Order: sequence, then structure tokens, then C-alpha cells
Amino acid sequence: MDYKVFNEEFKARVERHFKLQGFMDMLGVELTAISPGRVEASLLISDPHRQQKGFVHGGIVASIADVVAGFAAYTLVPADHNVVTGEIKVSYLNPGVGDRLWAKGWVLKQGRKLNFCEAEVWCNNAGKDVLIAKATTSMITLFPGDIAPR
Amino acid sequence: MDYKVFNEEFKARVERHFKLQGFMDMLGVELTAISPGRVEASLLISDPHRQQKGFVHGGIVASIADVVAGFAAYTLVPADHNVVTGEIKVSYLNPGVGDRLWAKGWVLKQGRKLNFCEAEVWCNNAGKDVLIAKATTSMITLFPGDIAPR
Amino acid sequence: MDYKVFNEEFKARVERHFKLQGFMDMLGVELTAISPGRVEASLLISDPHRQQKGFVHGGIVASIADVVAGFAAYTLVPADHNVVTGEIKVSYLNPGVGDRLWAKGWVLKQGRKLNFCEAEVWCNNAGKDVLIAKATTSMITLFPGDIAPR
Amino acid sequence: MDYKVFNEEFKARVERHFKLQGFMDMLGVELTAISPGRVEASLLISDPHRQQKGFVHGGIVASIADVVAGFAAYTLVPADHNVVTGEIKVSYLNPGVGDRLWAKGWVLKQGRKLNFCEAEVWCNNAGKDVLIAKATTSMITLFPGDIAPR
Repeated sequence: MDYKVFNEEFKARVERHFKLQGFMDMLGVELTAISPGRVEASLLISDPHRQQKGFVHGGIVASIADVVAGFAAYTLVPADHNVVTGEIKVSYLNPGVGDRLWAKGWVLKQGRKLNFCEAEVWCNNAGKDVLIAKATTSMITLFPGDIAPR
Repeated sequence: MDYKVFNEEFKARVERHFKLQGFMDMLGVELTAISPGRVEASLLISDPHRQQKGFVHGGIVASIADVVAGFAAYTLVPADHNVVTGEIKVSYLNPGVGDRLWAKGWVLKQGRKLNFCEAEVWCNNAGKDVLIAKATTSMITLFPGDIAPR
Repeated sequence: MDYKVFNEEFKARVERHFKLQGFMDMLGVELTAISPGRVEASLLISDPHRQQKGFVHGGIVASIADVVAGFAAYTLVPADHNVVTGEIKVSYLNPGVGDRLWAKGWVLKQGRKLNFCEAEVWCNNAGKDVLIAKATTSMITLFPGDIAPR
Repeated sequence: MDYKVFNEEFKARVERHFKLQGFMDMLGVELTAISPGRVEASLLISDPHRQQKGFVHGGIVASIADVVAGFAAYTLVPADHNVVTGEIKVSYLNPGVGDRLWAKGWVLKQGRKLNFCEAEVWCNNAGKDVLIAKATTSMITLFPGDIAPR
């Protein structure tokens, strides 16, 4: 396959692509590591991120998992291709308690049409990391000519 | 089972519970219908909700699906019990294009410990509703004495 | 799209395709209804289908769900295309108690590459049907030229 | 928690429990490794296991994944408790080509009511192992007094 050359220029492109997501900005999510097939992101937890029991809202956990998994797939497709989420399953292992939420996503198996990815979401509480969620997803590769995204 | 009497007082309690979720406020989500085992919610779509292609961000779709499914389960547990998401799978059927996002969640099977719920997420575009996502979840019932949430 | 004409000849083709699955024969599964985007199947429950508590084994439930969902998608693709399961999630709502297991699968959203399908699995116990499982899947369409199946 | 002492006697109990599953016998699945929170199983592939394209049937892949994940959870619950599958998601990464199918399951997070488990399914083809599927599941712990299984 004709993969992207993975270099600083490419990292800049992934960052640029990410910055187009206003929702990530709303949440305060930042990309913290980008390498071929692997992406990490992080956010500082504040009150609006918490649900009624004080834990990070499950929707935020799902969102950051989706983003790191999707961008992990995006690092492996040609420059004129795109990636959208086909489906994602998130298992909530532990309540999200702490100051910083971070996630890593990776590609388990890249296919021509589908990329099977996984993500872990961790919560840092007073210096200790706890795995709070695990996600598995099917990320769809969009070819340049694709009108319908699926 | 000893279910809550379902009345105006109860609706007020569900609303109050919902308002404790700062993240829902951040997104602009409002509950629009509450009945036993069934909850609907809605949000007006604005730019921060959209990803780089102009579609509603998948994380927001997952979040509203999680909320209507979880609150649907919450309407069926005793007043001193709580509900947390065990896992959720969201399938993205169509891109989220339009002005208003709305979702309905319902309980497929209530168990003592686990509630299997489903949710549909719709997008209203110029008056036409399109089903954009379908979710299935396992919602965990928390008993009053539960220390660990799972 | 250039869909198959749906007629008796086509039903015969679906049946033929199904009969190539030795595993379905091993289980005793039969197709009981075939229409565009919707397929039903059934099996008579006997001892080897049951796990240690006397309930139908979850693997059999997942297998019949997979088959009706996959064949539902297969009814909608062109005659020279094929369908394989990308992923499936099965939620076990109730124990499988009874004499006959049956399932219906349908296409929720057909896409060019991916078909989102659902399936219900029911158990008939002394004349009464109980919904025992619900599945959601992503079925991948294989084009004639596809070498790698995904 | 009051976990089982993990010894030869316990392994014998797991084996005994497993042998009660006629469906595993029908498929030819054998447990090949049992340790606390981790179980492996294997089957020799023959024609009835294959679907129309000659690949191992997805239902068999899901079944062996379910079994190793469920028994992994079973190794960690007290002797008078039981484990049933709440839900399972299986992602099919590669077609199952080869002579021997084997799987390993492990507990990602044990909770009091729910055990989040994962499983990998591998296919050995002429001496080379290929990862063909990945599963994530919620396994429900049944307490001695539980009448309804969920």
C-alpha cells in the first residue's frame, strides 16, 4: 500500500486536521503523541466534565477514545484519504476520578476499507494512573471519490 | 420489583438528576420527554459540535445516546438506586447533517443488576429526520450499599 | 444501485449459499424466511446445544444471530458480490430455555462498503416465545475484485 | 474478596464444568491452559467448521472467544458462584484459514457484579499463527442466591 511518509510535515497535517474539530477544543483535548498507527491525547478535568457523582462523564470518555482511535487509523491512510468511525464500543472499567484524562489509540488491523482499532482511557488521580475504559472500533477508510461516507 | 411511582414528582427528580451533569449543559442537551423506561433528549447543533467535515462529532452522538439510554434505565430503578453505564456500542449509520440532534433511549430488558438499553440518534435537517446512529448498552444498577460502582 | 432482482431464483441462490455452510448443518439450523433485507432461521434445541445449566449455549445464539444478519445483507448486494461479518455484538437478555430457537435478521442501513444489520434471537418454550438476545453487526460487502476480504 | 485457592483441585473443577458443555464437545474444543484469570482453548479445524469460502465460520470463532473469556472470569469467582455472558463483541480481523484454531481469554477488570474480559482468537496455518479475531465481553457474576441470571 501507498502509505504516507511519516515525518514532521505529516504530524503537522494530523495536528491541523485535529484542530478543525471544534468539539475537541470545547472539551480541551490536546494531542500529545503522534506516530504511525498510534496517537495519544489528554485533557485537564474540570467541573463541567463531571457527571452527578463527580466522575468524568462517560460521553467524554467515549469521545476521547473515538478521537485517538480514529486519528491512529488516519496516520496510516494515504494523504488524500479520510477516516470516519463506523462503530465504537466502550467498556467502562472504573469511574473516572482525578485531574487529568488521557488516552492512547492504536490500529489493531488495517484493512483496505476497514481499520480495526483499540483505545485505552486512563485517569490520573494524584499522580496515579488508573485504566478507566477500553474501546474497540471499526474505522472506515474514505477514498477520494467516496460521496457517501459509508 | 418495587418500582418508583411514576408521576410529576418523579419527573422532577429525573430532571434534577440530569441538571447535575455539567457536560450536558456544556453541550446544550435538554431532556424533552420522560416516561417509564423511555427518555428523549435534544440539542441545537452549532459550529463547535461539528468535526472537520461539518458533521456532528461522533463523540457528541455517543454522549447523547448514552444519556437517553442511561436515564431510560434510571426511570425504572427504585428511588435510592442509581445507574451507571457498563458498556455502550454506537453504530454510525449516516453523517450528522442538520440543525437539531435528538435521541430516544429505551429499556429493552431490565434485570436486577443489568439493564439492556438501546438508543437511536436522529438529525433534523431542514425539517427532515434522518437516523444517524444506533446504540446498544448495558446499564448497571447501583444498589444503595454499593461502594465500588461495578 | 444495481440490486438483485428478488425472486424465486434468487431465493434458491440464497438457500444454495447457505447450504455450503457445514457448520449450520452441524447445528441443525434451517432458513425459514427470505425476503429483501430480511432473513429468518430456526433450529430444534437438543442436548448438545445446551451448556452446563441447561440453557442454549451462547455461542449458538451468536452463530444464528450472525447468520440471519449476514444473509439479510446478502439479499441486498449484487449477485457477484459477497458479504462477510466485520464485527458483531450480542447482548444476552434472557437464558435460552425451550424447544426451538429462532432468529430474524434485518438490514438497518445498507452502505456501499458496510451494512449495519440487527438480529433478534427468540426461544420458544412450550409455545411461548421469549426474546433471549439482540445483536448489532457491521457486515462488509466484498466486491468481485476484492482479494483481501476486509 | 474471597477468591478460590488456585490449585490442581480447582483446575479439575474448571475442567469438569467445561465438560458439561455439550456444544464444546460438538465443536471439538479442548481447554489447553487454565490459570487465575486466564484460559486457553483449541480445536482442530475440519470441513464442518468452514463456511462457503473455506474459512472457519464466524459463529465458531465467536463461540471459542466466549468460552475462554467466560472461563477466565470463572477462575476468579468463589466456588459457589457462577458466570454467564452479559454481552460479547467480536471483531473479525482476518479470515480463519488453517488447521488449528486457538484462543486465549483474560479478565481485564474484575468487578463484584461484572467482569470485563477480552479474548483473542488465532488460526494456525502451516505452522504460522495469525490473529483472526478480538473480542470484548461483560461477564456477569451469579451469586448463590440469584434466581434470575441477570
